[in-house]
Amino acid sequence: MLCLFFSDVHITLQPDIAFGGARVLIRQIRNKIIDAILLRTHRNDVARRQLKPRFGELPPEMWGLDVDSAGELCVAGWSVRELAEEHGSPLYIVDEERLKQNYHDFRAAFTKHYPKIDIGYSYKTNPLPGAIKILHDAGASAEVISEFELWLACELGVPPDRIIFNGPGKTVSSLEKAVSLGVKLINVDSVDEIERINALAAQQNRVQAVALRVVTSQGWSAQFGIPIAGGLALDAFRKMKEASHLDPCGLHMHLGTGLKDPDTYFKAVQDMLDLGVELAESLGIRIRHYDLGGGFGVPTVKPFEGWDTRLLQSGRPAQLIDPAAAPDISVYAKGIAKLFAQYVDTADPDCPEIVLEPGRAVSSSAQMLAVRVLTVKEDESRRLAIVDGGKNICIPLGYEYHEILPANKMREPQVQPYDVFGPLCHPNDLLVQGKMFPRLEAGDTLAVMDAGAYFVPNQRNFSNPRPAAVIVSRGKSRVTRKPERFEHIVALDADFSPDALS
Amino acid sequence: MLCLFFSDVHITLQPDIAFGGARVLIRQIRNKIIDAILLRTHRNDVARRQLKPRFGELPPEMWGLDVDSAGELCVAGWSVRELAEEHGSPLYIVDEERLKQNYHDFRAAFTKHYPKIDIGYSYKTNPLPGAIKILHDAGASAEVISEFELWLACELGVPPDRIIFNGPGKTVSSLEKAVSLGVKLINVDSVDEIERINALAAQQNRVQAVALRVVTSQGWSAQFGIPIAGGLALDAFRKMKEASHLDPCGLHMHLGTGLKDPDTYFKAVQDMLDLGVELAESLGIRIRHYDLGGGFGVPTVKPFEGWDTRLLQSGRPAQLIDPAAAPDISVYAKGIAKLFAQYVDTADPDCPEIVLEPGRAVSSSAQMLAVRVLTVKEDESRRLAIVDGGKNICIPLGYEYHEILPANKMREPQVQPYDVFGPLCHPNDLLVQGKMFPRLEAGDTLAVMDAGAYFVPNQRNFSNPRPAAVIVSRGKSRVTRKPERFEHIVALDADFSPDALS
Repeated sequence: MLCLFFSDVHITLQPDIAFGGARVLIRQIRNKIIDAILLRTHRNDVARRQLKPRFGELPPEMWGLDVDSAGELCVAGWSVRELAEEHGSPLYIVDEERLKQNYHDFRAAFTKHYPKIDIGYSYKTNPLPGAIKILHDAGASAEVISEFELWLACELGVPPDRIIFNGPGKTVSSLEKAVSLGVKLINVDSVDEIERINALAAQQNRVQAVALRVVTSQGWSAQFGIPIAGGLALDAFRKMKEASHLDPCGLHMHLGTGLKDPDTYFKAVQDMLDLGVELAESLGIRIRHYDLGGGFGVPTVKPFEGWDTRLLQSGRPAQLIDPAAAPDISVYAKGIAKLFAQYVDTADPDCPEIVLEPGRAVSSSAQMLAVRVLTVKEDESRRLAIVDGGKNICIPLGYEYHEILPANKMREPQVQPYDVFGPLCHPNDLLVQGKMFPRLEAGDTLAVMDAGAYFVPNQRNFSNPRPAAVIVSRGKSRVTRKPERFEHIVALDADFSPDALS
Repeated sequence: MLCLFFSDVHITLQPDIAFGGARVLIRQIRNKIIDAILLRTHRNDVARRQLKPRFGELPPEMWGLDVDSAGELCVAGWSVRELAEEHGSPLYIVDEERLKQNYHDFRAAFTKHYPKIDIGYSYKTNPLPGAIKILHDAGASAEVISEFELWLACELGVPPDRIIFNGPGKTVSSLEKAVSLGVKLINVDSVDEIERINALAAQQNRVQAVALRVVTSQGWSAQFGIPIAGGLALDAFRKMKEASHLDPCGLHMHLGTGLKDPDTYFKAVQDMLDLGVELAESLGIRIRHYDLGGGFGVPTVKPFEGWDTRLLQSGRPAQLIDPAAAPDISVYAKGIAKLFAQYVDTADPDCPEIVLEPGRAVSSSAQMLAVRVLTVKEDESRRLAIVDGGKNICIPLGYEYHEILPANKMREPQVQPYDVFGPLCHPNDLLVQGKMFPRLEAGDTLAVMDAGAYFVPNQRNFSNPRPAAVIVSRGKSRVTRKPERFEHIVALDADFSPDALS
């Protein structure tokens, strides 16, 4: 017999003591407690949630968007609905000016406080060559994690001394290419790689600059890097120093994704700086590049946490986005620079460089995904809208809350919550649950915001071709990626001729 | 103050009654209970788990594979390692004979007990045209859920009267195409679609055969279909009957994916048959096609359940696969036929047809994915192997346990558990955790089994090109899909010429 007293909540359950029964019991206890808390502690919030419309939580101005006199959502003066009609739906829309501005703002936040900054855009975040090119033209370097991305950087004309090569599983051929190019830094992830890179550099009679990906006391460890703890990173540097064709000159960390806690970041930076001192003292190695990675969260996206998952499972909408939860990048910049000032002389022209590898922080808010409503289904209990893009192209909506705007009905009243699903035959093909919208009908266009991070790399051909992308600015729009046609999906299959491609 | 008595487990916690505190409290309670149960109720199982090697749980014979004298895993006489070396890694390997046999076994299980059976292979499960073609040549019809799949079926030469068109979000152009082809059945998912299909059929002066996707008392409902409950399905049939250009003649259900409980299936079939009786009596509609969907589980794959998730989170391997947990398809066939015998005269040549839409049950075990070890990392606590394919191509490994065989070391002793990761920069890029392997080293080939369901449709270009596929049979092998090259990934991007394709 189990008795559970939780303030005024009193639960009595007769558990079957066998394992199956115990499992059921746990689930019952958990659900009872959660329901009790939902009703009690959270009563006000629940009430607010049910009354507060989900649409308009974050105004379109958060993304620099306008609404025209007809109530249409506009990017740089272009109607989202019209763009989707002209170029086909689903459609990625890249806001060129905002993308540039995001980059400049990110860079400026750091250069204001520290003299030597290199910003390497994380290719994996949004590998649309047209969008990446805008960032390179604005001054960004390239952060790549595979041979494909290394190749793409070369194709986009990035000089090798502006390419940083990361990743836990670098193939031999990718390392060979990186060494032959003489990229700025290869960030070594394992002891194995030290010998492998050295051998390749020796073959090519080159000296390759390398950094070590370290595990700090904070953030991700998993399969990545070599821990500072236990002297393991120091041992790896000893090996790199002994290697005839390596120039060990950098430290690399990467703490996570969507980070919203500057203190975590600062503690890890401190670990890096302390290791830098130790390397100088015990091995005479001078760290010229402190690569602090990326992973900065943005104010307009909210990763689902435990509580959201519960709410979603119980058919409720997830928690509201709190834009204030993501600190401005200047908070990171200021704090990091302050730490560096304690360790290095920033007036010295030889002071180390800080490398940053933002992805989401730069591109997330500069891109949206337009989808079209195919069908609306209603019964007494709820309304469903089925749209033409689901978990084939909207993977992040499974683990983050993104604003979704009714692009052609921005001034209509929000009448009822909708569950918005994609077109795939799977119950998890859900874009958003219980979100207030104006009355939706087939043909309406919805704008999934912040589609500039982890949408494009995660998209798949699940029963459907992949979308086109258009880049817009004031008075100009251009297709940067054509829509995939059916023929393209099977272009590499025997019995389907590549001639079909054009 | 909270007191929790669970047999001999006694937990006392001082909760902070504010919301944050309550949340922490719940987590503490849950973890304490789970840990207690892990230690107590499950003690024997945990001990067994830690001692029992993971490799070899299921012998290669489960997939009809051999091990040659050199200890190499072979498919139809072909060494997996050699295939991956010849065609590049990662590589899908389709076992042609097994694929055909799976289809014939599935079909035979049903035809043994019922006279009219149509098997429509679910295209979305494994959309490799070469593999699908094998199934069509063996006699399968096509079950498609998008305009792309409809197009593909036509390209593969499937006659329209052997195509069934499903899905909650069918575009107008896809419906137009389906009606103009005159496909065997369009399975209507919403009331909206009734008018839409009727209008298209009227325009083309055709009568289109339609079924209704219904929600039974069992399995998935979510965004799909129209409930039998409350007379909603009946209302929809009334509308379909009134529509001038529709021939309502079918019922469709689809309960889920990886199902392992025949009773669920039988209850739902009974719901369908009861509705069939009601339709005949109240509307004079005779159901000619009972489409029972697919979703049958296979013995060699184990979906993660709540308990697996806990084990994985705590760094332990998931539960063992129990092949007996997936009933043989004959159990379904026999039970379903028995139900039908209560409702229809199977000796009548006009008795209704049973349509089945298997995907996984047919193709899952006939295809593997070969990946190569890039790097091995070790510390005191664990060994990691990083391979060249992660969550870019192995999505199902995030929610199911699949056997992974050390293809070139099948006779070597298993020495230690490994965590196997892919090459992506994300800690979730995990293939398997705590699995016993022989000593692994860079260059080893691992065979991820049961890669014939939901691997190909879910694969994505996350920093990497997508793999080739080869079809093998005794004495013959052929490349059915060429490996994607870097140029292909950006072939639709401006500034990358399609001339680069060849």
